[in-house]
Amino acid sequence: MTPLRLGATIGILGDGQLGRMLSQAASRLGFKVVIFGPDKESPAAQVSLASKVAAYSDEAALARLASTCHVITFEFENVPAASLDFLVAQGTRVAPSSQALRITQDRVLEKSFARETGVATVDFWPVDSLADLEAALKQSGTPALLKTRREGYDGKGQVWIRHADDAASAYESLGGRPAILEARADFTREISVVAARGWDGAVKAFPIGQNHHVHGILSTTLAPADIPASMASQAHDIARKVLEGLDFVGVLAVELFVLPNDQLLLNEIAPRVHNSGHWTQDGCLCDQFEQHIRAVAGWPLGDTQARFKVEMTNLLGPDILRWPELAAEPSARLHVYGKDDPRPGRKMGHINRILD
Amino acid sequence: MTPLRLGATIGILGDGQLGRMLSQAASRLGFKVVIFGPDKESPAAQVSLASKVAAYSDEAALARLASTCHVITFEFENVPAASLDFLVAQGTRVAPSSQALRITQDRVLEKSFARETGVATVDFWPVDSLADLEAALKQSGTPALLKTRREGYDGKGQVWIRHADDAASAYESLGGRPAILEARADFTREISVVAARGWDGAVKAFPIGQNHHVHGILSTTLAPADIPASMASQAHDIARKVLEGLDFVGVLAVELFVLPNDQLLLNEIAPRVHNSGHWTQDGCLCDQFEQHIRAVAGWPLGDTQARFKVEMTNLLGPDILRWPELAAEPSARLHVYGKDDPRPGRKMGHINRILD
Repeated sequence: MTPLRLGATIGILGDGQLGRMLSQAASRLGFKVVIFGPDKESPAAQVSLASKVAAYSDEAALARLASTCHVITFEFENVPAASLDFLVAQGTRVAPSSQALRITQDRVLEKSFARETGVATVDFWPVDSLADLEAALKQSGTPALLKTRREGYDGKGQVWIRHADDAASAYESLGGRPAILEARADFTREISVVAARGWDGAVKAFPIGQNHHVHGILSTTLAPADIPASMASQAHDIARKVLEGLDFVGVLAVELFVLPNDQLLLNEIAPRVHNSGHWTQDGCLCDQFEQHIRAVAGWPLGDTQARFKVEMTNLLGPDILRWPELAAEPSARLHVYGKDDPRPGRKMGHINRILD
Repeated sequence: MTPLRLGATIGILGDGQLGRMLSQAASRLGFKVVIFGPDKESPAAQVSLASKVAAYSDEAALARLASTCHVITFEFENVPAASLDFLVAQGTRVAPSSQALRITQDRVLEKSFARETGVATVDFWPVDSLADLEAALKQSGTPALLKTRREGYDGKGQVWIRHADDAASAYESLGGRPAILEARADFTREISVVAARGWDGAVKAFPIGQNHHVHGILSTTLAPADIPASMASQAHDIARKVLEGLDFVGVLAVELFVLPNDQLLLNEIAPRVHNSGHWTQDGCLCDQFEQHIRAVAGWPLGDTQARFKVEMTNLLGPDILRWPELAAEPSARLHVYGKDDPRPGRKMGHINRILD
């Protein structure tokens, strides 16, 4: 595509912290930003030229958005794929595509896609009934992880099944929604790759992040990860296969399990900028947010070299109240999301500590 | 002062690129920002929660601003000092102070202050009439530089007098405004110090920048400058004297001439973040914009160590049209100000190139 000119307008579906940081990167490159999402004075709207408060499925509002934007993207994978189709039908360029979003919104489609693309995943079984679940558990053994096929994040919408007897209560706990049973991966650690692909097919990946989760929520990312070069190269190959297989335009993240034999299994694809890529804000010259904007705007992808080793720590809920102490650390940079209520587990900000 | 809490609102008088970058830094620290200035959809308003379009002297509008802000600062030294007094009278905290602004708005007051503080300046003479000018020229010799006492920037509002005969035409060209005649400084280069002081009197300075001007407008800054440590230390001492002498809270810049004998002469004080400090955005963890916000918010001052050597180049007018080429440079970061009309000489953006 012809690169978006300076001063062009980018629409972002989603109004949380990822939209906020995308908006700031877009402004730095000279674009104007309109945020589309459900909340007033949202984290993203606070730093953007304009915002439209509307439901993601509100076609009249989407049509108005389409008429003012030169390209539209999203920061939230639970935007309805049909809304992207609607925007495209209005004649607006949209990236990533609704097709890439549809696949990555559904854990069964996502893992099936990965396997067809030659990327290993944990074993999995679609579950549409209790009978399906019982049959699947016979193959998976326990413990195994039952998740909704769609939505769910930060450990929500999923339940561990420790004994086959618990199948019924686990199935009920998901409210009868279409589900997926995943075999337990006996991994030694979790890493992720944040990578971008442009309209022209160019691919650039950031160095690998090593992630530490607590209660299902990302706690820290260390990057570049302390892993052998061969493993990093294997992880980058997976990211490239995923980007190319999805004909993806923009930044995505691939979460990978590292098995004891160093084999990598795909855990999840996030079709957007990702918490495990926040370290790039202070570790790289072009961070994941600018990279995504460059990709969807048809600009050349930026430099992904790590200039520093960084440890990113999420500030969840009341962690943010420690800001006086965090703001006084000399080799760190604090990023706050502009949310008012620091309820437990809520992502309020993060801090990037430079390690070398 | 008690540090400003997260989510507090900072008001910024001035709506240009400095306000824009201050606003982005404030948002990153979790503050909300209201921009006050004459233009709609200004560079600063585009990235801020709210903006008020009004004249700087509009007291009704200033009163409304005061009622919504926890602290108010400025990005533009030609804001009326009386407006700051008015805001303080409303009970709002304002930094830097109107007194610091009054001194630095007037070239005679500024240089007199510098000398009283023990900081050397070029020789200068207040000029309120042609007779004053003719008398001053007898002492200064030619060439000498006639400037308006107030306003004027980027080489505007000043004229070189090459021969004593040109006194009348030079004086007329300034429209009879109060003026200052400055002796020519035979300098070998120009450096600048960007430094901050908190409400508690803490001072932190960034490494020295070496500036190159073209047609009176800053073209490039190289930082840290290639100067002896003793000169850097002398420059930092001058910045500290100026900050303390003005009882300054916030970031300011001190422009210095380097004489052939390595003596430093104060050229100008900018009572705000400064173009010659833009390199800190990519050379330091805490840049000048975040530092200013920290200072006025009563937060601890950030780390000013240079992590990289940087060359900042201003993109003036049509220079910005080279963005496709600039955006493709791998070791550089492009900063665009969101202005529509790239008229000659207008500051449209800058690029920071990492040199090591």
